[in-house]
Amino acid sequence: MKIVISGLGIIGGSFAKAIKKYTDNYVIGINRSMKPVIEALECGAIDEIGNIDSLKDADMLILGTFPQAAVDFVKQVAAYIPEKCIVIDTCGIKSEICPQLTALSKQYGFTFVGCHPMAGKEANGFTASEADLFVNASCILVPGDADDESVEKVTAFVKKLGFTRVVYTDPKHHDRMIAYTSQIPHVLACAYVMSPACLEHHGYSAGSYRDVSRVAKINAKLWAELFIENRDALMSELDILTDNIEIIKNAVKNNDQQALEEILSKCRKIKEDLGE
Amino acid sequence: MKIVISGLGIIGGSFAKAIKKYTDNYVIGINRSMKPVIEALECGAIDEIGNIDSLKDADMLILGTFPQAAVDFVKQVAAYIPEKCIVIDTCGIKSEICPQLTALSKQYGFTFVGCHPMAGKEANGFTASEADLFVNASCILVPGDADDESVEKVTAFVKKLGFTRVVYTDPKHHDRMIAYTSQIPHVLACAYVMSPACLEHHGYSAGSYRDVSRVAKINAKLWAELFIENRDALMSELDILTDNIEIIKNAVKNNDQQALEEILSKCRKIKEDLGE
Repeated sequence: MKIVISGLGIIGGSFAKAIKKYTDNYVIGINRSMKPVIEALECGAIDEIGNIDSLKDADMLILGTFPQAAVDFVKQVAAYIPEKCIVIDTCGIKSEICPQLTALSKQYGFTFVGCHPMAGKEANGFTASEADLFVNASCILVPGDADDESVEKVTAFVKKLGFTRVVYTDPKHHDRMIAYTSQIPHVLACAYVMSPACLEHHGYSAGSYRDVSRVAKINAKLWAELFIENRDALMSELDILTDNIEIIKNAVKNNDQQALEEILSKCRKIKEDLGE
Repeated sequence: MKIVISGLGIIGGSFAKAIKKYTDNYVIGINRSMKPVIEALECGAIDEIGNIDSLKDADMLILGTFPQAAVDFVKQVAAYIPEKCIVIDTCGIKSEICPQLTALSKQYGFTFVGCHPMAGKEANGFTASEADLFVNASCILVPGDADDESVEKVTAFVKKLGFTRVVYTDPKHHDRMIAYTSQIPHVLACAYVMSPACLEHHGYSAGSYRDVSRVAKINAKLWAELFIENRDALMSELDILTDNIEIIKNAVKNNDQQALEEILSKCRKIKEDLGE
């Protein structure tokens, strides 16, 4: 396949590196700024620096940019995307962008499959990308109106890159789950480090601090967009979370050790029942 | 030194294993139930199974039990503890227990130094103990009224076991810092897994979920005691946390992407300034 990747940050860059490491596909990189594409070319993550013409005979287009930027890019280049091309995004939210990209795919004849690789780290940019970022990770596909053959093609493709699990869902369910599994931990990490006590934690902390605060080293621009574009699902999970904090807080406030022990036992059981 | 360890759970057991691995001291184990002491003897973590008489010529007594159990144990055996003996606890809270243990030390003539090893994992009991649990960890000492020589002795001792940092503080500051670095992450982990979404996270989650939820596999009895015995400091940090969640929540609710980006940028800067 001839694969064009638009946006060579940590995710787009990792796709490029993984494709070159694990497949024989030809990779063309496009990026707003030149530094990442030059780096990518020099380290062999891409075969060629591309432009709008590169799309003309592309078999696949991977959108590695922020959500709105991904939609804007496709709007600009839609007329250049051939009908045989499968377009996949890599965005952390779906309700806001999948319907727009599906509409464009129908208008211009290409295929769109929503895609969210459940992998990342608290670092950004091409320099943070890794060929093995997706190894053992889960890939969420949001097929929408795409035909089965294309969805199977994307499934086989991502499995070659190291993903060991592929789940299929719709934009709404995706966004509800991601609000919980990914966005809430980012809100918590940020709220947590905002305490004045954070500044003097050295010497008084260990794994618990490290794990909860890790993702507070956040890409502010990206996550501000992701939070707001998933507002309803995020607000709903935040309400559930603050209610649950309140339940624990009340047991502590009332010195009710037995009630507290029962609550905490239930939490332990949830983790155990999940096999964690 | 002849060292008696009372309570061979994950912490007491790890002390035993570390002492045998890294020093030449003689270790005697005492535990309410027999299984852990037999296991400890069989694997060489202790040299001898002890009883109240073992204390008579002990140079050090390490309290590896829950906080109130540690105080109760010392109350029962205080008359058997020789004046030369340094008693250290390993509890996660200090204001509730250090004054009681200091009072007993003055009454009976031995020395008490509060001690909190900043190491642990989401597992309990002797089987979870490790000789290297303390390697590269920080050890908090709460010297109270102990003489400098004894504090230096404890410092040198814990450094031999792998701790690379020793900090000294008083019970109140200890409890305020621990409310933040350790108790809040445990409250958060529990509140987090209480969401109905947790039950269906498989396939939709990655590192963020794993890290925030990790310590929800909690020792309910221990942490119910720790939370309640540190009620004031914990309530205060919980208020700070929920206020900060509210700040982020409001920016999302108001669709204020710029304000949100500014908040998140500050969080990133806090982590960067801490060198994390």
